Amino acid sequence: LASKLPDVGTSIFTRMTLLAQETGALNLAQGFPDYAPPLALREALARHALSPDGHQYAAMPGLPRLRAAIAAQVGRLRPGAPAPDPDAEITITAGATEALYAVLAAVVRPGDEVLVFEPAYDLYGPAIRLQGGVPRYVRLPTPSFRPDWAAVRAAFSARTRLVLVNSPHNPSGAVFSDADWDALADLVDGTDALVLSDEVYEHLVLDGAPARSARQHPGLRGRSFVLSSFGKTYHATGWKVGYCVAPPALTRELRRVHQFVTFSVSTPTQLALADALEADATDAHARGLAGFYQTKRDLFRGLLAGTGWDLLAVPGGYFQLAGYAAFSEAPDVEFAEELARRWGVAVVPVSAFYHDGYDPGLVRFCFAKEAPTLEAAAARLRQRL
Amino acid sequence: LASKLPDVGTSIFTRMTLLAQETGALNLAQGFPDYAPPLALREALARHALSPDGHQYAAMPGLPRLRAAIAAQVGRLRPGAPAPDPDAEITITAGATEALYAVLAAVVRPGDEVLVFEPAYDLYGPAIRLQGGVPRYVRLPTPSFRPDWAAVRAAFSARTRLVLVNSPHNPSGAVFSDADWDALADLVDGTDALVLSDEVYEHLVLDGAPARSARQHPGLRGRSFVLSSFGKTYHATGWKVGYCVAPPALTRELRRVHQFVTFSVSTPTQLALADALEADATDAHARGLAGFYQTKRDLFRGLLAGTGWDLLAVPGGYFQLAGYAAFSEAPDVEFAEELARRWGVAVVPVSAFYHDGYDPGLVRFCFAKEAPTLEAAAARLRQRL
Ligand SMILES: CSCCC(=O)C(=O)O
Ligand SMILES: CSCCC(=O)C(=O)O
Repeated sequence: LASKLPDVGTSIFTRMTLLAQETGALNLAQGFPDYAPPLALREALARHALSPDGHQYAAMPGLPRLRAAIAAQVGRLRPGAPAPDPDAEITITAGATEALYAVLAAVVRPGDEVLVFEPAYDLYGPAIRLQGGVPRYVRLPTPSFRPDWAAVRAAFSARTRLVLVNSPHNPSGAVFSDADWDALADLVDGTDALVLSDEVYEHLVLDGAPARSARQHPGLRGRSFVLSSFGKTYHATGWKVGYCVAPPALTRELRRVHQFVTFSVSTPTQLALADALEADATDAHARGLAGFYQTKRDLFRGLLAGTGWDLLAVPGGYFQLAGYAAFSEAPDVEFAEELARRWGVAVVPVSAFYHDGYDPGLVRFCFAKEAPTLEAAAARLRQRL
Repeated sequence: LASKLPDVGTSIFTRMTLLAQETGALNLAQGFPDYAPPLALREALARHALSPDGHQYAAMPGLPRLRAAIAAQVGRLRPGAPAPDPDAEITITAGATEALYAVLAAVVRPGDEVLVFEPAYDLYGPAIRLQGGVPRYVRLPTPSFRPDWAAVRAAFSARTRLVLVNSPHNPSGAVFSDADWDALADLVDGTDALVLSDEVYEHLVLDGAPARSARQHPGLRGRSFVLSSFGKTYHATGWKVGYCVAPPALTRELRRVHQFVTFSVSTPTQLALADALEADATDAHARGLAGFYQTKRDLFRGLLAGTGWDLLAVPGGYFQLAGYAAFSEAPDVEFAEELARRWGVAVVPVSAFYHDGYDPGLVRFCFAKEAPTLEAAAARLRQRL
């Protein structure tokens, strides 16, 4: 069986998690919290698990109650745009991963080009190629990781079907400014190109900066698929529930594919998430996330201050990029291996986010960890000085 | 946005469920039980929901404990073949739907042909076409719905990449005989064609007939993706956990795609399923399903005996096909509408399982229902005599 993705191996996230298990390193590699989802949410899932009802297929586009609760929350948290219509504009997916895949499968035809900004999450390129599409990679300038729009314009062509953006950005944490959103809207204005806006870290915009969504831009709303993830928002990456907000015509195409990719998503899990959202009409949980992660970021940076690590700015998300020139001249893949084996801390080498293995000399720490984990990791990192 | 699946509308299952809700008809259309998963399984899910652990990403191929438990069970229930290797041969998916989709995406390239026997589950054709593949439909003879292998041979060509089989069969309940498995093995022998064996009703082979899997045939095992579904086996269609058993080289390609389609499946749900399988080393649950469904089938058939309904044989699965020539000459879609609106029972018209709308004059009842539901449905059906 000849492979359709011959160059795809085990993902860097899986590999580093296995390396952490093998070496006993603290796992600051794969992006997931070492704390639990809120107790009330877990209790809600337990309640629905025990109930004799609510175990059969949910509606294909998602549980109506959950879609209504999402629509209301998006309406509250994204002022300036009308709340989405839960029936026609929201689709619940098996994590944001399925949403990404299904949007690409619904939109991209053989030969279509998709603009992808690198460093990029590892699924973008292969998922585009599986549709016969052609990823056109545009490198984000370091250390800001904000697009050079002139370079983006140069890569845009009549064959560009979709522009894939991700703000806050994984792995850098870069957050689009209003000028970035305007530049994106200008880019696609007057073309047929659509936008896939991966906003899974939407509530993790730090330092009080405004968290903007493609939905809020009048030039983008009508042509954007906007993705979010309950895994990130509720510290439950293993629950695998995400969603896509998109105008009715785009949602229709997404659902045509979603129907055949997974059909529907866990009913008890959707019921529990609906309970949690409905019980939080002030969005206290989502609004509290920025402060929660800012404390972790500041703790981790403080512990590494003055140690030789070159800590890049972290405007959003839950990852810290760091240069290691003070310690090693090795390629980042080698240095990450050494970090796990000798220093006892697993990280992700940032070259894994480039299709061509470009190595900006950076590693990524996930700081979505309890303070004692961050302190233990920092202690190991300091011990080598 | 021009549709990649312009002819795909809302699925017949969703439409009939909505019609049942609108009309108050008893829903014997979409295939799902009106009873709950076993209490011990629901309790296991509640336990894992409450635990502070087990809420982050499961391993991409599936929870190792669950894969080990599946391998052991397949080994016990499929004598004559070695138990599959849980590391290299089992992948947990977001329902059998994702397994079907991901196998097709991993194997089918533009222009490849896939043999599909009709009537066929509604995702097969569109999911093949999304890969640029060409479904080659072969009609199953009524009323046996067992393949006419001469016709299958005639449809097989040098471009045939995959043969998709489904035993027990939805909607007919037909079960492959040993001769059918042999004919399938002969068909692909000496070719590069692979087999996708959708065995989601594997434990629902009725009347004591042997339940055979593609895995058990030495001519098929090495080239088959074999799918099953915890939704069907544990009365939990809304949990969305299925799996694929395939030789290492095939599993490798499946996982390359699965990694980008959903990445992984709900961790608490996998933990609960692992508990249930581990606690049932004699496979009492799976072994009991045939008797459980046989009782329902016999009850439902008994209630409709002598009423004019032409009840086809049901060797497997949980659907009853029935001819309605005694009541109506209408096309099945119209008659199904009338059944819901006037008789108060929702069914699926079997023409929905043919890409060309071929109408064999049959409707499908789902008998995965409590006895009182079946009795109430039968009472409504008798009232019209
Ligand atoms: C699905 S594993 C990857 C998790 C993640 O988002 C990351 O580490 O970047
Ligand atoms: C995913 S809805 C369809 C359920 C089913 O398998 C059927 O009714 O045939």
